[in-house]
Amino acid sequence: MSPPMSEQDKTKAAPKAGGRGARFGGAMDEAAAALNSSVEFDKRLLRDDVRGSQAHARMLAAVRLISEDDAKQIVAGLDQVAGEFERGERKMDPALEDVHMNVESRLIELIGDPGRRLHTARSRNDQVATDMRLYALSQATVIVAALDKARVALCRRAREHTATLLPGYTHLQRAQAVTLGHHLLAYAEMLGRDRGRFLDAARRAAECPLGSGALAATSLPIDREKTSADLGFTAPTRNSLDAVSDRDFCAELAFACALLGVHLSRLGEELVLWSTTEFGFVRLGEGHCSGSSLMPQKRNPDIAELMRAKPGRLIGDVVALLTVSKGLALAYNKDLQESQEPFYDAIETTHLVLDVLPRLVAGLEFNPERMKEAAGDPALGATDLAEHLVRDGVPFRKAHEIVGKLVRHAEQLGVSLRDVPEHDLPQIAPELHEAALQVLSASRAVAGRAVFGGPAPAQVMREAQRLASELKGLGYEV
Amino acid sequence: MSPPMSEQDKTKAAPKAGGRGARFGGAMDEAAAALNSSVEFDKRLLRDDVRGSQAHARMLAAVRLISEDDAKQIVAGLDQVAGEFERGERKMDPALEDVHMNVESRLIELIGDPGRRLHTARSRNDQVATDMRLYALSQATVIVAALDKARVALCRRAREHTATLLPGYTHLQRAQAVTLGHHLLAYAEMLGRDRGRFLDAARRAAECPLGSGALAATSLPIDREKTSADLGFTAPTRNSLDAVSDRDFCAELAFACALLGVHLSRLGEELVLWSTTEFGFVRLGEGHCSGSSLMPQKRNPDIAELMRAKPGRLIGDVVALLTVSKGLALAYNKDLQESQEPFYDAIETTHLVLDVLPRLVAGLEFNPERMKEAAGDPALGATDLAEHLVRDGVPFRKAHEIVGKLVRHAEQLGVSLRDVPEHDLPQIAPELHEAALQVLSASRAVAGRAVFGGPAPAQVMREAQRLASELKGLGYEV
Amino acid sequence: MSPPMSEQDKTKAAPKAGGRGARFGGAMDEAAAALNSSVEFDKRLLRDDVRGSQAHARMLAAVRLISEDDAKQIVAGLDQVAGEFERGERKMDPALEDVHMNVESRLIELIGDPGRRLHTARSRNDQVATDMRLYALSQATVIVAALDKARVALCRRAREHTATLLPGYTHLQRAQAVTLGHHLLAYAEMLGRDRGRFLDAARRAAECPLGSGALAATSLPIDREKTSADLGFTAPTRNSLDAVSDRDFCAELAFACALLGVHLSRLGEELVLWSTTEFGFVRLGEGHCSGSSLMPQKRNPDIAELMRAKPGRLIGDVVALLTVSKGLALAYNKDLQESQEPFYDAIETTHLVLDVLPRLVAGLEFNPERMKEAAGDPALGATDLAEHLVRDGVPFRKAHEIVGKLVRHAEQLGVSLRDVPEHDLPQIAPELHEAALQVLSASRAVAGRAVFGGPAPAQVMREAQRLASELKGLGYEV
Amino acid sequence: MSPPMSEQDKTKAAPKAGGRGARFGGAMDEAAAALNSSVEFDKRLLRDDVRGSQAHARMLAAVRLISEDDAKQIVAGLDQVAGEFERGERKMDPALEDVHMNVESRLIELIGDPGRRLHTARSRNDQVATDMRLYALSQATVIVAALDKARVALCRRAREHTATLLPGYTHLQRAQAVTLGHHLLAYAEMLGRDRGRFLDAARRAAECPLGSGALAATSLPIDREKTSADLGFTAPTRNSLDAVSDRDFCAELAFACALLGVHLSRLGEELVLWSTTEFGFVRLGEGHCSGSSLMPQKRNPDIAELMRAKPGRLIGDVVALLTVSKGLALAYNKDLQESQEPFYDAIETTHLVLDVLPRLVAGLEFNPERMKEAAGDPALGATDLAEHLVRDGVPFRKAHEIVGKLVRHAEQLGVSLRDVPEHDLPQIAPELHEAALQVLSASRAVAGRAVFGGPAPAQVMREAQRLASELKGLGYEV
Repeated sequence: MSPPMSEQDKTKAAPKAGGRGARFGGAMDEAAAALNSSVEFDKRLLRDDVRGSQAHARMLAAVRLISEDDAKQIVAGLDQVAGEFERGERKMDPALEDVHMNVESRLIELIGDPGRRLHTARSRNDQVATDMRLYALSQATVIVAALDKARVALCRRAREHTATLLPGYTHLQRAQAVTLGHHLLAYAEMLGRDRGRFLDAARRAAECPLGSGALAATSLPIDREKTSADLGFTAPTRNSLDAVSDRDFCAELAFACALLGVHLSRLGEELVLWSTTEFGFVRLGEGHCSGSSLMPQKRNPDIAELMRAKPGRLIGDVVALLTVSKGLALAYNKDLQESQEPFYDAIETTHLVLDVLPRLVAGLEFNPERMKEAAGDPALGATDLAEHLVRDGVPFRKAHEIVGKLVRHAEQLGVSLRDVPEHDLPQIAPELHEAALQVLSASRAVAGRAVFGGPAPAQVMREAQRLASELKGLGYEV
Repeated sequence: MSPPMSEQDKTKAAPKAGGRGARFGGAMDEAAAALNSSVEFDKRLLRDDVRGSQAHARMLAAVRLISEDDAKQIVAGLDQVAGEFERGERKMDPALEDVHMNVESRLIELIGDPGRRLHTARSRNDQVATDMRLYALSQATVIVAALDKARVALCRRAREHTATLLPGYTHLQRAQAVTLGHHLLAYAEMLGRDRGRFLDAARRAAECPLGSGALAATSLPIDREKTSADLGFTAPTRNSLDAVSDRDFCAELAFACALLGVHLSRLGEELVLWSTTEFGFVRLGEGHCSGSSLMPQKRNPDIAELMRAKPGRLIGDVVALLTVSKGLALAYNKDLQESQEPFYDAIETTHLVLDVLPRLVAGLEFNPERMKEAAGDPALGATDLAEHLVRDGVPFRKAHEIVGKLVRHAEQLGVSLRDVPEHDLPQIAPELHEAALQVLSASRAVAGRAVFGGPAPAQVMREAQRLASELKGLGYEV
Repeated sequence: MSPPMSEQDKTKAAPKAGGRGARFGGAMDEAAAALNSSVEFDKRLLRDDVRGSQAHARMLAAVRLISEDDAKQIVAGLDQVAGEFERGERKMDPALEDVHMNVESRLIELIGDPGRRLHTARSRNDQVATDMRLYALSQATVIVAALDKARVALCRRAREHTATLLPGYTHLQRAQAVTLGHHLLAYAEMLGRDRGRFLDAARRAAECPLGSGALAATSLPIDREKTSADLGFTAPTRNSLDAVSDRDFCAELAFACALLGVHLSRLGEELVLWSTTEFGFVRLGEGHCSGSSLMPQKRNPDIAELMRAKPGRLIGDVVALLTVSKGLALAYNKDLQESQEPFYDAIETTHLVLDVLPRLVAGLEFNPERMKEAAGDPALGATDLAEHLVRDGVPFRKAHEIVGKLVRHAEQLGVSLRDVPEHDLPQIAPELHEAALQVLSASRAVAGRAVFGGPAPAQVMREAQRLASELKGLGYEV
Repeated sequence: MSPPMSEQDKTKAAPKAGGRGARFGGAMDEAAAALNSSVEFDKRLLRDDVRGSQAHARMLAAVRLISEDDAKQIVAGLDQVAGEFERGERKMDPALEDVHMNVESRLIELIGDPGRRLHTARSRNDQVATDMRLYALSQATVIVAALDKARVALCRRAREHTATLLPGYTHLQRAQAVTLGHHLLAYAEMLGRDRGRFLDAARRAAECPLGSGALAATSLPIDREKTSADLGFTAPTRNSLDAVSDRDFCAELAFACALLGVHLSRLGEELVLWSTTEFGFVRLGEGHCSGSSLMPQKRNPDIAELMRAKPGRLIGDVVALLTVSKGLALAYNKDLQESQEPFYDAIETTHLVLDVLPRLVAGLEFNPERMKEAAGDPALGATDLAEHLVRDGVPFRKAHEIVGKLVRHAEQLGVSLRDVPEHDLPQIAPELHEAALQVLSASRAVAGRAVFGGPAPAQVMREAQRLASELKGLGYEV
């Protein structure tokens, strides 16, 4: 079906901007063109666009819509085009509106008619949908690897600190002593869930829209299975109208980024907090702090603060992506162009933060002395004391009440729980006795909470080992 | 370890509001209490709270922290409490702050000391986290079933209309003819993805926090595997600090609701559009319209409009949920109470819309004549014409240009593409010929686009059958 | 123009639900009705609906579209209707869809034909727009008053603490000593801006849509100036299409709520922080704390945490409101019903938080000793030291560098800035001398920063007096 | 107080990156530096930074903290620095972190010690706050002018079409005839409100933070009134802690952008809709359309679609800005750096859309014939008919019911309202008569709705004239 080479036209005339083709008399209004052009951001898709086009050309040749020689010229030409743009030898031309037209236009300049055959049985609508999914899939892979590196870093520090005591907080009030390893592994849990979300989103994104045309597929005898497999997708998409207008994968990945960002913002907040003179539990490595232009003594945890702040924009990106698709009639609408920037922003912001995370964690200078001292506050054993009374047979609610009275009494005396005079105890409650107060030791208390999921050193060690095994299974050294 | 019955105190004194216990002298400031109280919304958790407590009591007995008899009294008492509240015989007391204290307080009134033992080895922090997950899991199940019912309705209508022609649109401009069945199945695709998102979110939510205590687990010898299995979770959570402060499942489910809502908003927009006098493709069933208080002739597609509008609040709910957890230090903070209302709103809004969807779809009165007429516009065949030229050996970009000239020429003459005089054709391009114009028939064109994912009746029938099989496999009649 | 009384029909037949009128054969589908009904939330508009209708009736009589007697019956009847609903003698009927139909329907039951004349020259579209603006204006007034009460509370505490030292923080690192009064007045500044935003929003909202009809005004000779003035608006709206579809005022007020909420969340965060054992700068009054169900010693700053969390939903409300109106064709669409709940939620959340604020502030138990001690850290004087060197003629950048070296030196010695041995000073920099180190006193340093906007006690006193004067001018006792 | 010139050090050593000064041993971690650097986006502040610094230098000289000659060198040097960067002779160095350090560093290279004196009595915290406000104020001014140009365009088209009939829609159902001029002026109303919001936001932003230092003002005797006035602010800010951490103005302006964006999205939606074959009311000028790469006949309203989509990101920007400041302890935190990009994005997106708006409106090719034909649908007169019956003395609710019956009757007969046989009328209702049906003429009906705010040609002309006068008063030709 492919024409003989002699018929080919080797002239260099490129297609007109934005597919205006022969349809329009004049050029686009300047301000309109500025609004319309996407090349400033969709140039990120260059490599994916080229990969997609190469697979498309190979398929066209396989079904004999173009010649094998055409396909070869296209594949080689596209490599050249990509190289030119990547090496900066050529700039994207905004007048050509987007990366797709820039690539195709340059290809036609280079190889003529075979280039004019590339867009056979394809539209920019299925093309951009394919490019964006290829981009999404490769970015998700990078993020999953970065999450694993962060988990490695957390796992290592957790193993160093399975028995390091610090206060656990609720409502930011010291509540019960826990271990630093346990605290660090809480973040590993969050990142583990995030990992699952990226994998699920990627699995759902792994369908290939190529062949959906502008909205209604094509009358040409293409082989969608082939392009899908060639590009590493699991299957072709099932409905052309849906395929060209579906940006679910952008929203879903951006959401995964935002929730990950929220987790890291919690770590950021804690590092800021723990870096204060008041807490003094940690210092960020010098490589992750900055100073003040006015106050020379400052050691500011800028990186932790930025980690805390980043979810703002990530949540904003999710909002943008969902809002853009809201109420859009089928199938493709130009509105979908607005799905790109928030999506890229979410992905790139996530990279930026994850890149810094492993070394940030590795460089944390903990102050176990300060932590232990804080964890030694006998009030932190109140719950353990109540549970001790339960073991003695006191119903929990009553035990809770008894310890509440003890706390109030100690406060009135201005002493710590452990220093309430022995002879006061029976007046507070007959169930109270000096021996019970022995449980008000942080290390004893923590060691006792060895239930699955608990902070006891032995349990934290087990959990850290399990995580280390998982990560080793993924090829990481832990 | 459980005390002999004779020691039990059968007095009816309930615990004080909000766990203030003996610690505080006075009551909470009135305006503060209004801000603090959650019972107005967390009463939704009543059944889940009772289920969770019953499983907890059975476990406490199994590990001999309470007696078997205590456990029996607790289980029976909780059933009675739930019944009293559900039948409206008892109102939740806002002074008791939340559903948990309302239930426990009433339980103690009813059964005395055994009730005081229920809270052994438990905190409201792990309790509410468990309740919310139980709620999340059951709601997700209901939503998945509702999605399936909606897919059944779409599948049925699609099978009725595999060959009904209508214009496909891009940019809301008529682009190429498609089939109504294909159009309806596009929505089935979206809902299919939504289904997967709810299942993934539910899978991730199916870990049991019970036993995590307030933040640091417990020193008592509980059996977390047992409660987890008893409540239908897949496993206990792995880290107590994370478990009490993790509301990821709320955000993830709310996001799934929002994206589903965006899909339905697209259907809503199309129904509004198609119901206009100008389009005239559909009328909503009378049961889904309303009239005007001022304009008696109106037949307003209110339900479609509300479907279009609902994502607004759903996106807002996602924002609220992500924002609340942003920057929160570990572990539990009261801020997390603010995770409840947006979560319930997302779930309930989703129910409200999904409940109406199957009958709405079933009741749509399509106007195939109007659709067919619109699809008959010969301009819609321009792409098919270009592809015809490609089959004749013209490179696609050239074919595209030729058809563009033809369109411009037809417009200048003020005639349709098919009515351009035969003798004008060679002037436009030598490749053009009368026979080629025969492809400008909607039904021929659509039938020719039978590639996988395309709109041809035969392909739509295949796809609808596949969906029907899937749904039958789930137990639905299609 | 009003008909003779004898023609009046005193039967009690009410209008059908939702203005379905005679147009529809059957009732609305049940699930559709559940989605469609707004009475559960728009019942908040009862009083405003009645006020609006009474003004409308008086106007109709003034232009002789109804009789004076009709108007009197309507006005009295509406008062009765409002009373019945408010006293709970009558429940709103969801089948009547909204508050407007509930009120009108009951009015017709009570007074017959005059009631049937009330809706003359009016539609539910201009009616609900008017009601919502009346609601918006009265709520804005209440919020402004609540803001003023909060400013009174801040001003009082600031005047108590014009000279109380505490560290000022940047990056949560101690930076320079400031005064507590200065710190509290920072919040008064924020609330002052919020106040302006509510007033601006209210001013813009104060135009009356009545008379805009469903979308296209009316052919009847109404007097829009009269209703506008009667209801306290500044003018009638200028364009009927805009007037029935404009919900800007909801979004703008919700935004003002959200930004206010962000300000209060900052205060919430600081109170949580300052309440920690580590900071120890403040205790919330017992009326604003709660305890723990498990840990008897806890004194949790729940109210501060909720203040910190509330912006989550407020930002969500802004998103919902903006998203609902996005891309809506003119004029009224049912989507606008979705503007109500997020709007009410924003307003009511704001009331809830502002109601608690003045007593919360009044009840704060500061610990000036702890604050002063923390502010005494000599490192906090580094900037003052650098500025001292500037006064000696050292260029600022050089002074900054010198003090930086001093800080590093002190850290290496493990001593405070003030305790660096005198003989080390020249080695660090020739410009350094013992006398300069005298400026490292918190109280001297603070007193020296008396520039306008600065923390010096004298300046804080001036600023507090100015605020007190402003508030006294508004009628508050400060 | 300024040192003699001979003491000056003319070496070219610049300050270290990010104010790390002598405090830190090593450089920042690479990934951390990438996260930390802001110069890629804050370079937008170059001109404002230079203006702010020049005013600061003049003030320092006036209060004799530096010499007049220093000030002159600084002012001239800064002009040179700005020029170098603007002309691209020099690139911003990311290692210097931000625009401020890039400028100051280059200044010191150029002029030595006087440059080292510029930062006297100033911090980057008050500096960046000042720069951002200067930027905000100038951008707001540009946006207000752009809004006025858009209003001019709308006003002109409205005056052309004061009497052009088209259907007004509610629920996208034809409701009542209106005039195109009236419809266009609805958008002028929205933009008028937007204008007010930008002015209010700018007024609130017009306070000068310079002199607030890092957080605690300065001990040096600066003159804040002078810099404030010099830079065109209305007053210095009143509280240093607030001033360095306040980004309200960013959020408020971004919100104004978002609401404006929502308004334009409504116009975008209508243009998309009206451009359809089905409506056919308008064609966008060729300069504002684009074609299809696959479907040569397409004339896609891309610009209108992008206008419809843009609020997505603008709402996202508002979310980002509010979320970033949520829960931030006073005073400056690095999180605030995240206030910049969403703010710039909101401003620049708004420029992009507003730039295209006037010519887009001017170029709209309306089709008055199609509009008039659609407006001629007699059903659109139903309300006018009901109001006619009211004039005859029928209570409105009864008139509404009568016309409802008539509509239903006509529908059953399959005829238009005007063609219901005369002898059927009395059966429907005795109040109906042939003469009444004469009001079912669109032009008569519209002319009759001449109330203030109504669509009658005479009223639209009055309103357009009023707007034209307002715009002429602002210096525009209308």
